[in-house]
Amino acid sequence: MADTITLSRPVADFHVHVRDGDMMRLVIPTIKQGGVSVAYIMPNLVPPLTCVADVLAYKSRLEAVDSSISYIMTLYLSPEITPEVIHEAANAGITGVKCYPAGVTTNSDYGVASYIPYYPTFAAMEEEGMVLNLHGECPSSGHIHVLNAEEEFLPTLKDIHSRFPRLRIVLEHCTSAAAVQAVKECGPTVAATITAHHLFLTIDNWAGNSLNYCKPVAKFPSDKQALLDAATSGDPKFFFGSDSAPHPIGNKEKGKNAAAGVFTQTHAAAYVAEAFYQLGKLDKLAAFLCDFGRQFYKIQEKEPEWTVVLRKEENVVPALLGEGAGAVVPFKAGEQLHWKVEIV
Amino acid sequence: MADTITLSRPVADFHVHVRDGDMMRLVIPTIKQGGVSVAYIMPNLVPPLTCVADVLAYKSRLEAVDSSISYIMTLYLSPEITPEVIHEAANAGITGVKCYPAGVTTNSDYGVASYIPYYPTFAAMEEEGMVLNLHGECPSSGHIHVLNAEEEFLPTLKDIHSRFPRLRIVLEHCTSAAAVQAVKECGPTVAATITAHHLFLTIDNWAGNSLNYCKPVAKFPSDKQALLDAATSGDPKFFFGSDSAPHPIGNKEKGKNAAAGVFTQTHAAAYVAEAFYQLGKLDKLAAFLCDFGRQFYKIQEKEPEWTVVLRKEENVVPALLGEGAGAVVPFKAGEQLHWKVEIV
Repeated sequence: MADTITLSRPVADFHVHVRDGDMMRLVIPTIKQGGVSVAYIMPNLVPPLTCVADVLAYKSRLEAVDSSISYIMTLYLSPEITPEVIHEAANAGITGVKCYPAGVTTNSDYGVASYIPYYPTFAAMEEEGMVLNLHGECPSSGHIHVLNAEEEFLPTLKDIHSRFPRLRIVLEHCTSAAAVQAVKECGPTVAATITAHHLFLTIDNWAGNSLNYCKPVAKFPSDKQALLDAATSGDPKFFFGSDSAPHPIGNKEKGKNAAAGVFTQTHAAAYVAEAFYQLGKLDKLAAFLCDFGRQFYKIQEKEPEWTVVLRKEENVVPALLGEGAGAVVPFKAGEQLHWKVEIV
Repeated sequence: MADTITLSRPVADFHVHVRDGDMMRLVIPTIKQGGVSVAYIMPNLVPPLTCVADVLAYKSRLEAVDSSISYIMTLYLSPEITPEVIHEAANAGITGVKCYPAGVTTNSDYGVASYIPYYPTFAAMEEEGMVLNLHGECPSSGHIHVLNAEEEFLPTLKDIHSRFPRLRIVLEHCTSAAAVQAVKECGPTVAATITAHHLFLTIDNWAGNSLNYCKPVAKFPSDKQALLDAATSGDPKFFFGSDSAPHPIGNKEKGKNAAAGVFTQTHAAAYVAEAFYQLGKLDKLAAFLCDFGRQFYKIQEKEPEWTVVLRKEENVVPALLGEGAGAVVPFKAGEQLHWKVEIV
């Protein structure tokens, strides 16, 4: 097995949270640090990005920090996102629309309770070739809880797909064997992102460990295995989206209502390389990190002026990114990875 | 529905953690405060109580703080607990032996990996009429995780029961519909305790909320319903054991390796009354809290000089018990209960 992997093009991360303001300035430099040149940017700011002008203004703020990254922009699905807004967004170069079910994760208070009112919007997206990004969970209620919330959502995924078969849909951060199976059963317009942290975590890792708590929660060992199998299978329906979620340390290290999210941006390619390495599947790494997402999205991107080299080298994840109250604890802080990202 | 319930005798709590030293002095006064006069004391100190002399010395320390409580004492199952020690313990008035599988909960590092070496000990306990208290979980490994750890243990419960049918066994803090069913299927020598907090919590309540994290973890809504049904059924196999677990606040409010346990001692009878009240089952309360456990254990106890009255009255749970680094966060801190314990 080679001790150096040179990626022919940098990683494309199809699920990135950079927030705004100070947090944005802290996190944006870590995109490149983690080996990523294409960042698909989530719209769940406070308030969320529900008009084209706000998305474009946000993109300008991102580019002011680092203009070398290709920021691929999205809108937040809400009643404001009419078919007219979709046409305007497509003309403005916005790629996708992210749909959050109401109340299931960070900044989802403005989210969707029913999909039916959005059928005209989905039809316009299908016409324009825009991508629908689904946070695929039903809110907990009655028999629905955090562990079956994703599986309970899968009939909705299949229903939207059958109504809009040409609409490209990404089931974001899939976490269960059931979701992997459902995505495989759909046509080629349906794909899924897989995060770095879900390649490592199961329920035991977040029980009593809020640093590892995220939504969707990590599930059973058999689900983790299904994600590893999908990510390393060479099936182009499964590609990388880190869902790296920066939260100030005080919002994570608490006894009650810890923020949901795991921060992986600094070491994005290294974590995934670690998981593939442990399975002896490094030959499938570049396809998952770099190729399949770009193929599905057919995005326009800047030609990066740098190259990502993964070196087999001991690499201890630092305790913190940043300082003071705004500092962020990275995934596997203090633990040792076998692979290191170098930008050359 | 009456607004006052006078219990004919105080609550018997068949699973109590009071620790030692400062924490013991903080917690013991809360036993009576919660309406409890009989406290079945857990032996998982550091180091654990593995000889008769240590158990008796611990009992003396407890009585020095409050001699009006009936402390029912237990040994910690470990290789030191030979049949000879069982006979000595029975003669010394020790009631039970608590068995912790290795590594599954607080201070279980000295716990049991296999039950087979303990068959002679179990035979001696059966002969002496001592009670075996089982923390019924398999350690997480392979396909076993915190959510099926109890269900995976149930064949072991049934196996021990079939080998020692006259040995009284309590499946401690049962948390799943499967465990309730297994206990029902066993003969009359097998019973189970149910905590206060498991009458309220499901997995969603401890996801990102380490204050509600305990072992066994709270499970699905259907499991919670099975516990409520068992507790309010009038079946004498199910009785109260709070498993109230005091941990210093700093060990609970943290991002990593939060201590497992929920502290309910201060409001023990009030929490359970709340759960039964919400189901319209207050007529079953005294049997669950006071009668069935005493019947199963046939214990000797001091005649309490006080009476427990439950009053229907707004009762906000305080934010903390104690002060400083040793303070403990009670279950439902800051929330309002409808019932209040009065000692008259």
